[in-house]
This record gives sequence, C-alpha cells and structure tokens, in this order.
Amino acid sequence: MPTVIVGALVQGKPNFNTIAYCGVAQSVPPMLSISMDKSRYTHGGIVENGCFSVNIPSEELLEKADYVGTVSGRDIDKSGIFTLYYGKLKKAPMIQECPISLECELVHIMDFEGKNDLFIGRIIETYADEGCLGDSGPEMLRVKPVAFSRPDHRYWSIGGLLGKATEVSKR
Amino acid sequence: MPTVIVGALVQGKPNFNTIAYCGVAQSVPPMLSISMDKSRYTHGGIVENGCFSVNIPSEELLEKADYVGTVSGRDIDKSGIFTLYYGKLKKAPMIQECPISLECELVHIMDFEGKNDLFIGRIIETYADEGCLGDSGPEMLRVKPVAFSRPDHRYWSIGGLLGKATEVSKR
Repeated sequence: MPTVIVGALVQGKPNFNTIAYCGVAQSVPPMLSISMDKSRYTHGGIVENGCFSVNIPSEELLEKADYVGTVSGRDIDKSGIFTLYYGKLKKAPMIQECPISLECELVHIMDFEGKNDLFIGRIIETYADEGCLGDSGPEMLRVKPVAFSRPDHRYWSIGGLLGKATEVSKR
Repeated sequence: MPTVIVGALVQGKPNFNTIAYCGVAQSVPPMLSISMDKSRYTHGGIVENGCFSVNIPSEELLEKADYVGTVSGRDIDKSGIFTLYYGKLKKAPMIQECPISLECELVHIMDFEGKNDLFIGRIIETYADEGCLGDSGPEMLRVKPVAFSRPDHRYWSIGGLLGKATEVSKR
C-alpha cells in the first residue's frame, strides 16, 4: 500500500492524517479514493469543506508523516508541522515538503456501514517539485515514496527497477 | 501503486487482467476497490458473476503478470497460464503461484461516467502461501510484491525496511 498524507481544514485549521488506504479510482477524469476511519479528526474536515489534499511524502519526510498519523488533531495542533500552500480550491492545505501533492474535490462519500468512509476525490490539480520530474513526469527514484505493509505496520522504501510494462513479458 | 492480477470468469472461462488501480476501501469488514476500464474483457466477467479475485504476484511472476495485462481475453485464452483454484464463492478463479489471493464478492459498482468503473469488493477469504507467512502474517520480503509507477509504466521491487509505524516518529 502507498503511504500518503491527507490534508484538510478542520474548523478553519489545517490538519493532516497519514494513511495507506488509498487508490486510483478513475483514469479519465482522474479520481482517487481514500478510506478513512469515521472517528478521525481529518474525516470531519473533509466532509465540512468538500475538499482535501493527498500529499506523497518521500523517505526524508517519514518521521513527520508517521507523527501526524499517530496523534490526533483533537489533541495536537498540526498546522505548523509542514510548510503549507493552497491551490485552486483555496481550502485544501498542501505540503511544500512533499514532492507531489494532489488537490482533490470531494465528489462522493461511500458509507458501507463499517468503520471507515470511502471518499472519492476528483483530482483538480497536481503539484510537483521540479526536482522529482524527469522527461515524462515524476520519477520513482526522485520521488522516493514509501510503501506500507500490514498487519506488521512497517514502512518500506522502493527498491530497484524490474522493467517496463509490455516489455517485461516479451523476455 | 500496487501491482495486482484481477481474476474473473468470463462466459465460464477464467480470465485475468493486471492492474495498479487498487486500494483498501474499508478495514472492518475488509473491502477493497479496483478501478477497471469498462472496455476490458475481465470487466464483463466481474459484473456477470458478482465476484472476482485479487492476486498479489511476487517478482518471480512478473513476466506472466505483465503478459496478462498486455493482451485481451477477447484474443487470447488466458485460462492455462496459471495454476488455478477456487474458494467459497466457487466462481472467482485464484492463482496458485501468487503468494496471496483475496476472494472478493462484488458489493458495489460506481460509475463516474468516465473511462473506468470502480468495483468495491468485500474480501470473503484470504489465501496465503505458508512460505510468505511470519509470526504476525504475510511478510513483505517474503511476498515480494511489485510497485508500479505512472506515467512511465515501470515495475519496481520493494526495497529496505524504513521502520515501524508509531516508532519512526519517536526518533
């Protein structure tokens, strides 16, 4: 699973929560899904504002990413942990230190009557650090995203290149 | 993004499609989402049978995984590529060579009027190769799953351990 930091304003204050329950929901137009515990403080902010950010931390930011996923915004003010900026939607706080941030408009909430809600976000804009871009866009070894495993709750780096799609099977 | 092989019967015959648009949708009860192009052959089989499998290939299976994601079941019979087995739902073909397979009941289809449908699957059962299990369940370095990047369409191995959740931020 990918490790991402979800950002939202909660009662006007930026808050963040690190999750691994995230996936692409649609290619065109681009949408993603995040699954979030209904009890999380950030959950309320996403519903309140109808938008959120999905920020991809690199390995270097892992200590802070882990921290915001560990403590609740009900107890700790997380608004000063990262350098923030805003985009088109004005209310989705994004993290300058992350090589890639996705600004999302909430388009659907799915409640399966379980522990989490599934938020579907339409990606309004993508922001990338120029340093992580190659000829065709963001590059894995420059972004250095973090994978996450359960049930052992561990973070992992991305390793070596195994090949390119459609070419691997021609070997 | 994670690389997974989705399996379904299409007109009674097992078919497979490798995708990276997959995410956890709910923790309890366990659900996942897969986003699939409406034109894909496997798409029809999932709707037809109301169930599917999500198989996690290890690096060793990448050539075959890439192959089934590259060619269409309309042109090629993929039923003999893997060793198959079935579980509780009887109609979700699973792959013996994959260290982990998730047997899913289709509980929801979301159509955002775009290129893909988002299928929500409730995980009815999880099957794991004993060789990939450690004391607390599947272990990353034994499963050896494959990450996928876009827009460069490349496969990546999982690298080194970066730390454990809640412990990393205490450094």
